[in-house]
Amino acid sequence: MTSVNSEKLSSARFAQATDAFVEVFTASVDFDQRMAAQDIQGSIAHATMLCAVGILTEAERDAIIGGLTQIGGEIDRGEFVWSIKQEDVHMNIEARLTDLIGIAGKKLHTGRSRNDQVATDIRLYLRSEIVQITAQLTRLQAAIVELAAQHADTIMPGFTHLQVAQPITFGHHLMAWFEMLIRDRERLDDCAKRLNVMPLGAAALAGTSYPIDRQLTAELLGFSRPSANSLDSVSDRDFAIEFTAVASLIMMHLSRFSEELILWSSAQFDFIDMPDAFCTGSSIMPQKKNPDVPELVRGKSGRVTGHLVALLMLMKSQPLAYNKDNQEDKEPLFDTADTLVNCLRAYADMVPHITAKKANMYQSAKRGFATATDLADYLVRKGMAFRDAHEVVGLAVRLGLETQRDLSELTLAELQGFSPLITEDVFGYLTLEGSVAARRHIGGTAPETVRLAIEAARQRLV
Amino acid sequence: MTSVNSEKLSSARFAQATDAFVEVFTASVDFDQRMAAQDIQGSIAHATMLCAVGILTEAERDAIIGGLTQIGGEIDRGEFVWSIKQEDVHMNIEARLTDLIGIAGKKLHTGRSRNDQVATDIRLYLRSEIVQITAQLTRLQAAIVELAAQHADTIMPGFTHLQVAQPITFGHHLMAWFEMLIRDRERLDDCAKRLNVMPLGAAALAGTSYPIDRQLTAELLGFSRPSANSLDSVSDRDFAIEFTAVASLIMMHLSRFSEELILWSSAQFDFIDMPDAFCTGSSIMPQKKNPDVPELVRGKSGRVTGHLVALLMLMKSQPLAYNKDNQEDKEPLFDTADTLVNCLRAYADMVPHITAKKANMYQSAKRGFATATDLADYLVRKGMAFRDAHEVVGLAVRLGLETQRDLSELTLAELQGFSPLITEDVFGYLTLEGSVAARRHIGGTAPETVRLAIEAARQRLV
Amino acid sequence: MTSVNSEKLSSARFAQATDAFVEVFTASVDFDQRMAAQDIQGSIAHATMLCAVGILTEAERDAIIGGLTQIGGEIDRGEFVWSIKQEDVHMNIEARLTDLIGIAGKKLHTGRSRNDQVATDIRLYLRSEIVQITAQLTRLQAAIVELAAQHADTIMPGFTHLQVAQPITFGHHLMAWFEMLIRDRERLDDCAKRLNVMPLGAAALAGTSYPIDRQLTAELLGFSRPSANSLDSVSDRDFAIEFTAVASLIMMHLSRFSEELILWSSAQFDFIDMPDAFCTGSSIMPQKKNPDVPELVRGKSGRVTGHLVALLMLMKSQPLAYNKDNQEDKEPLFDTADTLVNCLRAYADMVPHITAKKANMYQSAKRGFATATDLADYLVRKGMAFRDAHEVVGLAVRLGLETQRDLSELTLAELQGFSPLITEDVFGYLTLEGSVAARRHIGGTAPETVRLAIEAARQRLV
Amino acid sequence: MTSVNSEKLSSARFAQATDAFVEVFTASVDFDQRMAAQDIQGSIAHATMLCAVGILTEAERDAIIGGLTQIGGEIDRGEFVWSIKQEDVHMNIEARLTDLIGIAGKKLHTGRSRNDQVATDIRLYLRSEIVQITAQLTRLQAAIVELAAQHADTIMPGFTHLQVAQPITFGHHLMAWFEMLIRDRERLDDCAKRLNVMPLGAAALAGTSYPIDRQLTAELLGFSRPSANSLDSVSDRDFAIEFTAVASLIMMHLSRFSEELILWSSAQFDFIDMPDAFCTGSSIMPQKKNPDVPELVRGKSGRVTGHLVALLMLMKSQPLAYNKDNQEDKEPLFDTADTLVNCLRAYADMVPHITAKKANMYQSAKRGFATATDLADYLVRKGMAFRDAHEVVGLAVRLGLETQRDLSELTLAELQGFSPLITEDVFGYLTLEGSVAARRHIGGTAPETVRLAIEAARQRLV
Repeated sequence: MTSVNSEKLSSARFAQATDAFVEVFTASVDFDQRMAAQDIQGSIAHATMLCAVGILTEAERDAIIGGLTQIGGEIDRGEFVWSIKQEDVHMNIEARLTDLIGIAGKKLHTGRSRNDQVATDIRLYLRSEIVQITAQLTRLQAAIVELAAQHADTIMPGFTHLQVAQPITFGHHLMAWFEMLIRDRERLDDCAKRLNVMPLGAAALAGTSYPIDRQLTAELLGFSRPSANSLDSVSDRDFAIEFTAVASLIMMHLSRFSEELILWSSAQFDFIDMPDAFCTGSSIMPQKKNPDVPELVRGKSGRVTGHLVALLMLMKSQPLAYNKDNQEDKEPLFDTADTLVNCLRAYADMVPHITAKKANMYQSAKRGFATATDLADYLVRKGMAFRDAHEVVGLAVRLGLETQRDLSELTLAELQGFSPLITEDVFGYLTLEGSVAARRHIGGTAPETVRLAIEAARQRLV
Repeated sequence: MTSVNSEKLSSARFAQATDAFVEVFTASVDFDQRMAAQDIQGSIAHATMLCAVGILTEAERDAIIGGLTQIGGEIDRGEFVWSIKQEDVHMNIEARLTDLIGIAGKKLHTGRSRNDQVATDIRLYLRSEIVQITAQLTRLQAAIVELAAQHADTIMPGFTHLQVAQPITFGHHLMAWFEMLIRDRERLDDCAKRLNVMPLGAAALAGTSYPIDRQLTAELLGFSRPSANSLDSVSDRDFAIEFTAVASLIMMHLSRFSEELILWSSAQFDFIDMPDAFCTGSSIMPQKKNPDVPELVRGKSGRVTGHLVALLMLMKSQPLAYNKDNQEDKEPLFDTADTLVNCLRAYADMVPHITAKKANMYQSAKRGFATATDLADYLVRKGMAFRDAHEVVGLAVRLGLETQRDLSELTLAELQGFSPLITEDVFGYLTLEGSVAARRHIGGTAPETVRLAIEAARQRLV
Repeated sequence: MTSVNSEKLSSARFAQATDAFVEVFTASVDFDQRMAAQDIQGSIAHATMLCAVGILTEAERDAIIGGLTQIGGEIDRGEFVWSIKQEDVHMNIEARLTDLIGIAGKKLHTGRSRNDQVATDIRLYLRSEIVQITAQLTRLQAAIVELAAQHADTIMPGFTHLQVAQPITFGHHLMAWFEMLIRDRERLDDCAKRLNVMPLGAAALAGTSYPIDRQLTAELLGFSRPSANSLDSVSDRDFAIEFTAVASLIMMHLSRFSEELILWSSAQFDFIDMPDAFCTGSSIMPQKKNPDVPELVRGKSGRVTGHLVALLMLMKSQPLAYNKDNQEDKEPLFDTADTLVNCLRAYADMVPHITAKKANMYQSAKRGFATATDLADYLVRKGMAFRDAHEVVGLAVRLGLETQRDLSELTLAELQGFSPLITEDVFGYLTLEGSVAARRHIGGTAPETVRLAIEAARQRLV
Repeated sequence: MTSVNSEKLSSARFAQATDAFVEVFTASVDFDQRMAAQDIQGSIAHATMLCAVGILTEAERDAIIGGLTQIGGEIDRGEFVWSIKQEDVHMNIEARLTDLIGIAGKKLHTGRSRNDQVATDIRLYLRSEIVQITAQLTRLQAAIVELAAQHADTIMPGFTHLQVAQPITFGHHLMAWFEMLIRDRERLDDCAKRLNVMPLGAAALAGTSYPIDRQLTAELLGFSRPSANSLDSVSDRDFAIEFTAVASLIMMHLSRFSEELILWSSAQFDFIDMPDAFCTGSSIMPQKKNPDVPELVRGKSGRVTGHLVALLMLMKSQPLAYNKDNQEDKEPLFDTADTLVNCLRAYADMVPHITAKKANMYQSAKRGFATATDLADYLVRKGMAFRDAHEVVGLAVRLGLETQRDLSELTLAELQGFSPLITEDVFGYLTLEGSVAARRHIGGTAPETVRLAIEAARQRLV
């Protein structure tokens, strides 16, 4: 799809032609062409600024903008011929521009370098990716909130150590996922804020001797400000690492959601039905309905953390300013953004179609002595110290285990055998509904509290 | 240092004693005892709240606070006897409290669990670490700014690809370091903001049936608010990962500073003198003066990224709410904080004592055709298109290389052989001083611009 | 435990004393003292060789060996006073030796450097750690085989995608774990083989001008050969990375075993009983029996992968030969070895006490249409193409789902409604026992095949 | 390039069609089609075996082999139409086979599953990649040895801490690189040995009820043996992790070579000339000749370590047997293999064209007191204890520093001022040639030793 050719940039200084394999090995056009729209956007702003400060004439500026616009159309229509000999997206576009408009095209690169140009393009690219990611994240949050709203009263077992711990509501559990995504959203916003600083004008590393107006270019491109130091501008890849770290956290969260969906849709848990459209079958076992989407998303968490490591190791020990190593920043970054958009979209599409099997959840909560803590709390309210109550309930649980009964199924006499403080009213505290309703402080699992949390979440998403 | 004993928590439910090796294997007291002060701080706030809502009497509260205060003293004085049988810092302190004050001690754990307790302690701990880290970071920034202020005019070669590119000032180079640290500081602040949310009150996972006042406890502990979801509260370790990601970026920056200091103090570059106090000698080569501190700091960048990976992998796929896996969050977090404080401190101590060898820097900038871009810009200003000027200068550089002369050492006739646009005034543009002074837009390397950047930085640090 | 002092190595060349904080920051004695035995072992061999080639007299050699032996005793008895001012384990021991035996002590360092000395010590250390790790790994393998031997016939559901797939035996499942550990063992052996090469004699980086006999020293220390290149010898840390990679794989395997034990001991699966001695309770929920050991081991998998990343990033881009960065190799390596020994030991202790709940496993296998593949295979043997049979069984499964019956519970008439090829004999193929027994080729789950695999494994472990 | 369609595998059991986005999201054909040749190879062997045991007729077998051969041709010629609706390479080929040969095509999947099929394909793929990687590695080793052979006598400074330490030869330095690659080669061989075990026949997870002959299939495919446990066979991805770990070590080594080449080709070191064909110029600075290939290779070290982390995290905590997560193993593995082949090839092409600037190397070795150790050794041979000699030389170096002279430029009187043991013969020991020649034990830098090492290396490569 790309033709190989041996002529290249700066050949005047070189006595030998580039090795043909090396040309392919060092070229980036295969993957950086996806920044073409940003490259054109940046060049148009640069040309506009060059004209404003008198370096280009209005005619030159207009020719450049016209040529770049035409090239943008060629790229969109798939007509543009990318060439390995032109190394990267920037040189491909500039070469085509010179073909189209002649000498004015050669003036576009005045007062800039590829070092600041690529740094600008990649920030513009990532800025637009973050908009898309945030949109999918918000869709997922909304889907979670609406599913939670259906299940503010649905009782299920809450687990610690994957052992039944205390009854909770399914809505409360889902809202825990929502909280994780709030933090993710904040981190994305913080990352976008730091990202939105313009390196253009740093040129190769030291700035340029032309009287450029970086404030103007920054305004044209929607950056909050031009960067403050030219060396830092061309060597900085913090934004890529910070973004990938934020992405790793998001993917880690999705891996946890996935683990739970997979567990819950196993025959052993059987808490939910996953929508068929998000599952696939087996090539050999006709009965299978596999939760492919959660499994695949869980697997992709490693991929993004891998990219984070790649970028940190890439930057480790690099002296200033720009080094060719930095060409390696793009593929991990692109793949991270793609993975994030796709996984969030798949989840946002899927979550509304998850069906809770309420009866199974409820039955599962009834097994496992989920109200043991409530019995302990009951004893404390009757005057026993917490640590002592804990011991007493331990003995009651042991009897339950040995006789295969829940605490609510022990007789009053049996319970009183453990502590004379226990009276008939104890059974009110040992129901799942009573246990859940009692946890009504901020953050608790009581249905009324969960409904308040859902309402607050909806306000947040408006 | 810790005595092993086989009695343990919750033994009532258990038919067998814990295996002695397992007891040691699963205990965390050896490393989590460093959170003792935070554990006591959290417990005092918790007891105060329990009293305010009527769960504890004032006498019980006072006994608890008195006991905890005494324990704090014992720990500070090294008199406290830590016990593996008590598993962790929390149980050790609670057991001692009960020894000291009896039954009231057993009431302290009312309305909380170790799950929310440890989550609170670790946030308090990290909050105070971030204060220290920020202080060292700021000291380092100040040291860099003051060194830069001494060298706003000091010319050195600027490098890309470790090849001499264009002349810059040493002050400008140092201010690139400063910019990296500004972003680090912002990330630390953002991390601290998200960290400062209180999990206490989430209890094991579902909240508690006691009428606790989480808002009050949060105020007592200086948290901005109580957390919004109990399951999330006990399972969330985002703050540890976000902090370690921020730390990885800081250490990556320090690895780059280190690389440059090591290069610059080599005999081949010879740009700086490192202070003796930050170097060491060799066991076998008496002449050596090794830049140990930068090398060690460079090496420690891997360590912190390793901790980041450990934490992300730790959390991957964990179902809610709390799992024992999470005990593994502490050692990477503690070591990251320690590493960061120490490396930043070493740098903040060291930077003021770095001596620039100005003459060597200047001579080095004179070699390597550092003003070639200025010649190209000169030609552009005379009317040549940039890409054509680039070609012309390439030919001039080739002549320089072949005859071992800098561009400023070619004759006017030779230069005019490449382009008739060149006239006598060209030599003004080919000096290092002229080149540097011309880059005076925002972010450029001109001494006047660097001085403005330094002044802005000083304002920022006040 | 260490006293700080400002005198240090090579001070003659230095005009300033080391900064006190820097002295602590750069010292390694706090963690490298655990290589003391290896340091002494290496020095004794070195002295023996120096005497054999005539550099030391026999009296000097004997004084050195005597002094070192005494120091070894002091260290074992905890009497040795470690000093930060002596930086590391090597200088501490040498300084003490000179205190003890005078001038001969100063001759020990002839023909070596700390660079080759530390490289030798750490290889000796790791060699002995691998012996211990292999022993624990083998114990775990033996425990797995013996548990498998009890369950060669115990039927359980086999899962793919955590959905019931086909019936298998518990013994067969356990032997899958065994296979993973075989590969781990081989990788440990390969690592040990490459590790066992002696760097001593490389001196600082170039070798020494003394006529040393490296072959002799290698023999004395049990190395397979002296290293072939002095620069490589002092800079190589491949062994640490290779070991940590092998360890990461072992820990990944243990994380998978852990995940399964945790799932199986949940109330929802309820396939096994974990031994009480390897579980702990809750501070708040008296009924809990948490599978702490598997959870903790699962969590520790991140830790070891983190160390692997730390070491790879540490070595990235280091120029030859030795740099101070390499001091950072020790802590990750030590912690990896400790983690591995402890996790393997905990598992080897625990596995024999795991109790299978056979009835639950069997019932679980009966649900989930585990023999659907057998029905497809039946149809193929009756002449239907596999892909068509797959479709037919899919329809039968759908009927089963809709009517909540297993395939073996459908009537012959119902089954024949899907394909007239089905006859009365089909029910023999739809039992769990029949399904399992049919898979008797190499690697299959048939009890007779599993018993053969167990027998082969036992032979392997003898 | 792939058409989307909504029909899919196992649709009989499913009530809803797959979501169109999900179909694309979960499909792997875009990247796994590169295993097409291996898929066909495996299917031909499987069909041959099925016929040998009587499951297929000879006519069916021949039809299958004919059809698969035709498909292989279509793929090679770029005529094959890949379809997303067929999910992956396996289903695409099987669907086409059934189009071509009808019912016999549907019989090919008898006695296997995609789970064992993909595990087999990927091992066949990696086996052939390792052959290519080994070939490039060996080419690089040969190039290094031949360059070293030209420079067995070429003196350069040896560095520790990037400070001049002792004189070495350039050939000796290069042979350190060779040693690293020997270990890499051994690790590749060990990895290939463990890789070459056949999972085919494990079917979905439990084996198959057909009387397959796995030994025969293994022989047909060149595997050393069939795997021993079916569950392990479909879930094992150790080989991918082990390979990526080996690759990370290779890339780490290349990052070190790269660092040195970049340093050496800087104007400050100026030890080598890099071949033009492996460098590129600047878009703005006409004089630049940037060592792009080493820089890019250095950067790619992070990429491969990132893939290693991705794979370890992918496998962490996965329960047996196969989960969809494992689809994520391919892209990191493919990219690792590609990166390795390309980087090794670029280096093997480049190394023979590196030119040493001998005079610069020699001059650089003369600065920096490189023979200080030789003076210490001289004093020891005259009877001084090593530690005392070390002190004496430190004082001499300080005088040299203060008066800007090398040790060999101090007068005899000055030297004798430090120790009366010094006599006229000392100057013989202070030359670079004398210093190097003295290190002639195994592994030392003496030219005669280096030549022996080169000869041994050549033997090894034959």
